[in-house]
Amino acid sequence: MSRFLSRKLAGLEAYVPGEQPKDKRYIKLNTNESPYPPPKNVVEAIGKAEIEDLRLYSDPECTALKSAIAEQYGVDTENIFISNGSDEILNFAFMAYGDRGAVFPDITYGFYSVFADLYGINAEVMPLKGDFMVDINDYCNKNSLVVIANPNAPTGIALELSEVEKIVSSNPDGIVIIDEAYVDFGAESTVRLTEKYSNLLVVQTYSKSRSMAGARLGYGFANEQIIEDLEKIKYSTNPYNINRLTQIAGTAAIENQAYFDGNCRKIAETREYVKEELRNLGFTVSDSKANFLFAKSDKIGGKELYLSLKERGILIRHFESKRIKDYNRITVGSREEMEIFLKNVGEIIGGKV
Amino acid sequence: MSRFLSRKLAGLEAYVPGEQPKDKRYIKLNTNESPYPPPKNVVEAIGKAEIEDLRLYSDPECTALKSAIAEQYGVDTENIFISNGSDEILNFAFMAYGDRGAVFPDITYGFYSVFADLYGINAEVMPLKGDFMVDINDYCNKNSLVVIANPNAPTGIALELSEVEKIVSSNPDGIVIIDEAYVDFGAESTVRLTEKYSNLLVVQTYSKSRSMAGARLGYGFANEQIIEDLEKIKYSTNPYNINRLTQIAGTAAIENQAYFDGNCRKIAETREYVKEELRNLGFTVSDSKANFLFAKSDKIGGKELYLSLKERGILIRHFESKRIKDYNRITVGSREEMEIFLKNVGEIIGGKV
Repeated sequence: MSRFLSRKLAGLEAYVPGEQPKDKRYIKLNTNESPYPPPKNVVEAIGKAEIEDLRLYSDPECTALKSAIAEQYGVDTENIFISNGSDEILNFAFMAYGDRGAVFPDITYGFYSVFADLYGINAEVMPLKGDFMVDINDYCNKNSLVVIANPNAPTGIALELSEVEKIVSSNPDGIVIIDEAYVDFGAESTVRLTEKYSNLLVVQTYSKSRSMAGARLGYGFANEQIIEDLEKIKYSTNPYNINRLTQIAGTAAIENQAYFDGNCRKIAETREYVKEELRNLGFTVSDSKANFLFAKSDKIGGKELYLSLKERGILIRHFESKRIKDYNRITVGSREEMEIFLKNVGEIIGGKV
Repeated sequence: MSRFLSRKLAGLEAYVPGEQPKDKRYIKLNTNESPYPPPKNVVEAIGKAEIEDLRLYSDPECTALKSAIAEQYGVDTENIFISNGSDEILNFAFMAYGDRGAVFPDITYGFYSVFADLYGINAEVMPLKGDFMVDINDYCNKNSLVVIANPNAPTGIALELSEVEKIVSSNPDGIVIIDEAYVDFGAESTVRLTEKYSNLLVVQTYSKSRSMAGARLGYGFANEQIIEDLEKIKYSTNPYNINRLTQIAGTAAIENQAYFDGNCRKIAETREYVKEELRNLGFTVSDSKANFLFAKSDKIGGKELYLSLKERGILIRHFESKRIKDYNRITVGSREEMEIFLKNVGEIIGGKV
């Protein structure tokens, strides 16, 4: 840290992304990426001409991409915001709507508390229930910035649409963010509710179900006045936030919904298979609706299992925070990757008996 | 604007990017893009495998790209920050270092005042001299955040290295940002001074001399503690800020310095040619060291010339602000584009006699 840094930022603890070790080739089950590549039409959309056109600025309005998303989701382009990964839209929303404080669970996406700290927002952190369920009463009648990941991370547990609507409708004077990064793997989306509620911002991403984590593309749905607020912040920080190739890839991807739907189905099937197998091995596993599982074993500590698997070339995500330190978050990879994972877990657990 | 938006942001006036009309094909001399495409090795570096790898997150540390830049500029990777366009690094620097206020010229890159407003920074706006020269005494002994574009925009006029050093050395308790977006077209870079001064941040971009405005890639050089500050803000807002394909393109581009040097020479030659021709047509033209010219004519108003050229399919940049409303900023395109531009200007001016 330099002696010049603003005091407001000096004490800030930054977010820590999942590790990306480069010492050997791992089976990567630690950052919730898709095991499947983007579809062929995305690969083909980025040709020589598109790369040569990099000399020109990207479209700050993301016109083609917004139109494609609007058509796919049955909303107007005025109700869509495009961001450089969904972290950017979350960042903008905390900046815009945190004046009255924010409310989110103790166990959820770790970035929410970083954003709150960054903007000096008073954060009310609500403990999940003992079974890691969100108690929706904790988020009703708050009228501050309510932030819920649905499905939640790293548990994978989802709220029902009616429960989310209860939270949204009970907070008419506060923005409710529903972070649907993982919604396509089996939960119910709240996108339709943005037509009914002017205080709802639904955030989605290309990083998980759309196999494009490396393209950095997030998007949000909301009332057009909310979108105007977010655009104002974008045009006051980084108007050309989405590069040309990502806009092209993102537009092409939307044209291939069937491919992604098929992948989501495969991942959900693999998830259910791995969940059963882990339970057979004695693990406690939450009922995840996401592309990951959250699991613990009485036979081995969370950190020990993580380290043992890492030694065997398999990365899963371990969190140090107290309430979940016995657990690990395991991304659902391909069926083949998960069979190798299960075989190794079996051997590690077997060796403990 | 929604009724939920923070009062701190409600009055903010966002930056207005150069227009990108889509009604017809224009000769684009309005946003300082390069007339030359990225080199072949950049086009080849983005292949099928790289696009398929979009399923994986990008490297948040930008390891390969930082190494390439470090080698090219003869600095350590610890002295480099990579950003999603240079606007992002400027944004972070205003956030980090604006507590004691900021100083910049009245006529310069329009985004500096937006950043100052965004963070509630007290901005001391120093008028350029009558000939649009920066008076370096206005920026000495300030010990707040000093921001100088060198060459300046939209004038193109550059300070000498010794003048910049005087500003930097006289502000030991404030950060000095030298925005070198246009430095490669003929001005002297301050990068070497970052070894000597711990309060200097030099900002560059791939958008102009490196023909990659659409890839969104900026970078900064500074003492490693400054870099740590900027990394902290990045990891607290958007850790994966640079997508995979941009990292690949940016790394490949560095390997082809000779191509870019050749383009910069060609653009500088074309600039000098157009400058003389405009002067022959009676224009007042500043001595630009950038890839644009700043010019006015007594025969036609700035806005009238801009509109007349737009009607003829040629875009240049007009600014409404009072002191420069008689001028236009004209990007230096290819020799062929500039001959069409000059022919049209001659016709428009000729029609006025």
